[in-house]
Amino acid sequence: MNYLIGIDLGGTNIVCGLLDAEGNVLRQAKRPTEADRGHEDIIRRIAGTAKELMSEQGIDSREVLAVGMGTPGRVNPEMGVSVSSANLGWKNVPVAALLREQLGRPVYIDNDVRMYVYGEAMKGAGAAYRYVLGVTVGTGIASAFVADGRLHYGRTFSAGEIGHVAMDGLTHRCNCGKTGCLETLVSAPGIARYARETIQSGRNSILQQAFPDLDKLTAAAVSWAYDQGDAVAIETMETVGEYLAKALAFNITVLGPEAVIVGGGAALAGERLLGPVKRRLEGLLPNVHREQVPIHTAKWNDEAGIIGSALFAKFSAGGESS
Amino acid sequence: MNYLIGIDLGGTNIVCGLLDAEGNVLRQAKRPTEADRGHEDIIRRIAGTAKELMSEQGIDSREVLAVGMGTPGRVNPEMGVSVSSANLGWKNVPVAALLREQLGRPVYIDNDVRMYVYGEAMKGAGAAYRYVLGVTVGTGIASAFVADGRLHYGRTFSAGEIGHVAMDGLTHRCNCGKTGCLETLVSAPGIARYARETIQSGRNSILQQAFPDLDKLTAAAVSWAYDQGDAVAIETMETVGEYLAKALAFNITVLGPEAVIVGGGAALAGERLLGPVKRRLEGLLPNVHREQVPIHTAKWNDEAGIIGSALFAKFSAGGESS
Repeated sequence: MNYLIGIDLGGTNIVCGLLDAEGNVLRQAKRPTEADRGHEDIIRRIAGTAKELMSEQGIDSREVLAVGMGTPGRVNPEMGVSVSSANLGWKNVPVAALLREQLGRPVYIDNDVRMYVYGEAMKGAGAAYRYVLGVTVGTGIASAFVADGRLHYGRTFSAGEIGHVAMDGLTHRCNCGKTGCLETLVSAPGIARYARETIQSGRNSILQQAFPDLDKLTAAAVSWAYDQGDAVAIETMETVGEYLAKALAFNITVLGPEAVIVGGGAALAGERLLGPVKRRLEGLLPNVHREQVPIHTAKWNDEAGIIGSALFAKFSAGGESS
Repeated sequence: MNYLIGIDLGGTNIVCGLLDAEGNVLRQAKRPTEADRGHEDIIRRIAGTAKELMSEQGIDSREVLAVGMGTPGRVNPEMGVSVSSANLGWKNVPVAALLREQLGRPVYIDNDVRMYVYGEAMKGAGAAYRYVLGVTVGTGIASAFVADGRLHYGRTFSAGEIGHVAMDGLTHRCNCGKTGCLETLVSAPGIARYARETIQSGRNSILQQAFPDLDKLTAAAVSWAYDQGDAVAIETMETVGEYLAKALAFNITVLGPEAVIVGGGAALAGERLLGPVKRRLEGLLPNVHREQVPIHTAKWNDEAGIIGSALFAKFSAGGESS
C-alpha cells in the first residue's frame, strides 16, 4: 500500500500520475482526452494508462492504496458521480464505479478545481497554512477552500463557482447564458478579448504587428507585450487585476484564509496580474485582513491536479492504512 | 445539569437568559450596559443578573452546564478573550476567565454576530438546514456561516467582516477609516442617511413632514414611509437591497449555503428590503445557486443572541454531559 494514483481529466488532455504515499510524483503520462469517443472509452483509456504506469514502476495494483481523479464540471464526490460536464458532454456518469471496475482499487473523484487547490494546499504553495483559498484562472475562474486539510463543499457541492457571479461594469454575454459574469473578463479568453477589443477601439499596440489576425491573440501574448511595456497590455492586466481583486475581497472576507493561491493557465502571468490585484486589494479589504493575507502563485500548476487527486484519494480512503 | 445561561452583551444593553438544555428560554432580563463603568463592573453585574435568574428559577449554579456570551468586536473564542471592542472600549479582556471566577461554571464566549447566527441556525429560521449563512444588518453588517452545527472562523477568527469590504459606487467615509465600505449604506444608519440625503438633494418625501429635523430620521421611519408608498423610501430600499444582494452573491457562491437568514434591527424591514434583494440576486448568482437558496428573516431576532450563546456553550462544553 505504498502508492497512489492521481488523474487530472480535462477537456483536452488526461494527465495520469503514479505517486508515492506522500504524494510525490514518480511517473506521469499525458494523453489526449478525445471527449467525442464517449465516457466508457475515456475511462477505459485512463485505466489503461494507469496500468502502464504501474507496470513501468514494476508494481502490482494491490500496492495502490487508492485512485483519485479530478473531472471538470459539477461532481458529487460522495456518490462518485460526474453530475454534468459541458466540456466532456457528460451527464450523471458514475465515474468512480466504472473506473473501480477497471482497476480493482477504491476510486474517489471530485471537481478538477477542488483537486487542484487541494494539491496546492496540502503539498504546494499553501502547505504551510491551515486555511487556504485557491483560485484557478484558466478557461474560466473558480475557487476552492481548504480548512485543516478538508475541502469546503456547501450545498450540492457547488461552493466556489465564482466565475459566474455577475459584476458591475462587465457587459459581455457568458457561455452560461447570463451577462457580465466574472469569467467573461477574468480568464485566459477574457484577457485576450479585453486586449483585442481595446486595440479594435483604435489604440496602438505591438500586439497588432504580432497578430495581424487579432482573433488569434492569446493571454500569453498579452504577458509578452506587457514585458515590452505595451500600454494596451498593461491596461489589460490592470483591469483584469482590478476585477480579480473585487472577487477576492469578498472571498477573503467571508472565508478568512491564511493565504491565497492563484493558479491555472492565466496565473503564468505571475506578478503582471498579481501586482495589480495586490494593489487594489489593499483598499478593498477590511483592516483586519489587509496586508496580512499573502497571495502566492501556484507551486505545481501542471501537476497540482494529480497530486491533489492522489492525496484526496488517500484522505478519503482513511489515511495511511487500507 | 439541566440548564444553560446565555448572555448577549451589546454596547447599549445586556440581555441575560436562563435556558433549559435544549435552548428554550425560561427566564430573561435586560439591563443597561453602561460601558463607561469598565469591564470589571460590567462582568460583575452580568454575574449578578445570572444569579438572580437562577434564584428566581429556584436552582443552584451547579445545575448549570455552561455559560455562553456573545460580545461585540473581535473575539478569540479559543482563549475566551475579547480582543478589541470599539463599542465597549475593551482591549484584550479575558472575559471568560473573569466571568467564570464569578459564576463558578465553564464560560465560553464568541463574537455577538456569530452567537446570533448560531442561535438562528440551530433553533431559529435555519434549523432545518445543514449549511446556514446568517447576515445581521443593524448598526453595521456582518455575516457568519454554520456548517453541520459548527461555526466557521478562518484565520484569527475574522471571517464574516463583510461590512468593511469597499464597494463600487459607495463614497462615504466609514468609521473604520476606509471609504465606501458596504455598511456605510447597508445598515440602519446607512438606510437613514440614504433617505435623508435623497431628500436633501431636493426630492419630496412624507418623511420631511414627519422629521422636520432630518438628522433624527431612522431606518424604522423609512419602513413606515415605504408602506405609505413614499418614492424616496422605496428608492432607498431598492438601493440598499441592491448592495446587500451584491454582497450576498459572493457570500452564497463561495460558501454554498442551503439557506440565508437575514437578521438584526434593519431586518425588521422584512420584505421591503428582502424583496429588492431577491429580485437582484437572481441576475447575480450562478445558475446552480439561483432560485434555490431561500432567504428568510430571523425567527428570534431579540432572543437569538442568548439562545445562540447558550447552545454554543453547550456545544463547547461537550454536549449533553458535563
